[in-house]
Amino acid sequence: MKKTFLIAMGSGDPEPWVKSFETLLPEFSIAKLGDDFERESVAYAMTWYHPPGSLADFKSLKAIFSLGAGVDHLFRDPLLPSVPTARVVDPDLTKRMTEYVILHALSILRQTRRYRNQQNQKVWLDDDHQPAAGDVRIGIMGMGVLGQDAAEKLSLIGFDVAGWNRSPKSISGIKLFSGHEELPHLLARTDILIVLLPLTPETRGIINAKLLKGLARDGRVKAPSLINAGRGGLQKENEILSCLDGGTLHEAVLDVFETEPLPVSSPLWLHPRVTITPHNASVSDPMAISKMIAEQVRRSERGEPLLYQLDQSRGY
Amino acid sequence: MKKTFLIAMGSGDPEPWVKSFETLLPEFSIAKLGDDFERESVAYAMTWYHPPGSLADFKSLKAIFSLGAGVDHLFRDPLLPSVPTARVVDPDLTKRMTEYVILHALSILRQTRRYRNQQNQKVWLDDDHQPAAGDVRIGIMGMGVLGQDAAEKLSLIGFDVAGWNRSPKSISGIKLFSGHEELPHLLARTDILIVLLPLTPETRGIINAKLLKGLARDGRVKAPSLINAGRGGLQKENEILSCLDGGTLHEAVLDVFETEPLPVSSPLWLHPRVTITPHNASVSDPMAISKMIAEQVRRSERGEPLLYQLDQSRGY
Repeated sequence: MKKTFLIAMGSGDPEPWVKSFETLLPEFSIAKLGDDFERESVAYAMTWYHPPGSLADFKSLKAIFSLGAGVDHLFRDPLLPSVPTARVVDPDLTKRMTEYVILHALSILRQTRRYRNQQNQKVWLDDDHQPAAGDVRIGIMGMGVLGQDAAEKLSLIGFDVAGWNRSPKSISGIKLFSGHEELPHLLARTDILIVLLPLTPETRGIINAKLLKGLARDGRVKAPSLINAGRGGLQKENEILSCLDGGTLHEAVLDVFETEPLPVSSPLWLHPRVTITPHNASVSDPMAISKMIAEQVRRSERGEPLLYQLDQSRGY
Repeated sequence: MKKTFLIAMGSGDPEPWVKSFETLLPEFSIAKLGDDFERESVAYAMTWYHPPGSLADFKSLKAIFSLGAGVDHLFRDPLLPSVPTARVVDPDLTKRMTEYVILHALSILRQTRRYRNQQNQKVWLDDDHQPAAGDVRIGIMGMGVLGQDAAEKLSLIGFDVAGWNRSPKSISGIKLFSGHEELPHLLARTDILIVLLPLTPETRGIINAKLLKGLARDGRVKAPSLINAGRGGLQKENEILSCLDGGTLHEAVLDVFETEPLPVSSPLWLHPRVTITPHNASVSDPMAISKMIAEQVRRSERGEPLLYQLDQSRGY
């Protein structure tokens, strides 16, 4: 019986992945959840928000691969099998996240929304009070690999950048706040808040009205703005909306949502000061990821340990 | 009789400048063209695209100040008085130009237009073939102070950057082409063309269909794109439009135009793949510029020579 490589995606389109792996792993049958495949033939599973329980009871399962760097989606599943489990580690993911963060920070700074509206009305009008990047204070919550890379490059462009991290750190050239008690200090000097935190029981719902009300009111930009490219579970969308409408928040750029895909009924979609992207701030090239995962399958088949294994007992 | 400081603007709103100089130069009368002022009292003039001839015949005129770094607007005027004339040199201008160039290069890379259209239709759909910055080749025409700063920062973000300059140069880490005969080599490896050239008789109309047809056709982005933040006289707008509609050009970001303000009749305004900004890619804070010019006035009043003087005989 040919072994099966199972693609278990509860989010996104599995078809490009099926095609990649058909090319890269010709010795396997490639199946996706819902296909008609033999359960005992499943040797490997690649997951992205798989439905909890959907990986249980595969007797021949040898390893699980998360399609991304974030792995909270795996640990939602109480029936996650205890087999070697690995994340994708891709330097490209960091660069792509920084592209996204710089794009949207500059877009807020340079008032893209205003000039687009003016263009639609054929209005030629410059804002004589345009601040420079150096006049605008960015605060980054989450100073891991992604936060650090973004902070360094935003500083090079000229922004006045500070970061906040749960545990103390030292990063040259960046003002750093840490711990629960220093968070208000970061917020009070922040015109553009960028959130790159992981989702944990501690961070769930952290982007709420109380936090947003703590942002700077004395800046050269109108009211503060928010960019969340971390996880949707970090934010309370109804409170973001009331802050936007109440003047606490000028603009929100959201790549992630409490429910994804964002439901058609969400008032965020057509809010005039909200920018929505479909959880693609940092998505690797599927072909590059597919190659990394196919190489992991070959390691496993040769009896070698997987790279980038998770510790299921710690949850990351 | 109180001396007059004259604000001679043919483009933009003079009012914020009037206010700044009223504060900074209380010993002068501040007037603008069209006001009722005594011609023999005019001691200094600040200009931005002043109507040719409008600075002639001020008997007490001691110096002229250009509001920006570009000074081609001065030399359009055959009646420009032969008095000491200075430009503004502001490091902030370089940073602001680089902000603009990075914003729009990333916006093209990350398909802002596509995701905005999707948001308007409440469509959640990711492009699984999104290239990274490293897959995209940027070509910069004009490697002066502005071009070099943009090239360095675009490289740090990950873009594959090359430059072209009229005369040979060497800039570490950047591929550089020079002279008329090497321009086709730059174009052939360019997915996003950024133009930061000065306007001279040689460069007038250089952004035309022939040039755009020379851009790369083998890139990972659809068709090549153009960003012109140099001077409007560099471009032939009817040829840009035909290239956009004929598939030669995917997207154009234009800060400058053959006629400014861009006439309401221009089809560029509402073209679905054109982004228009009102010649504000790099405009300094009026207060910062006003302070620099007020200091120049004080130098002159003390009998000291002006800083950053132009050589009227050379034209720059």
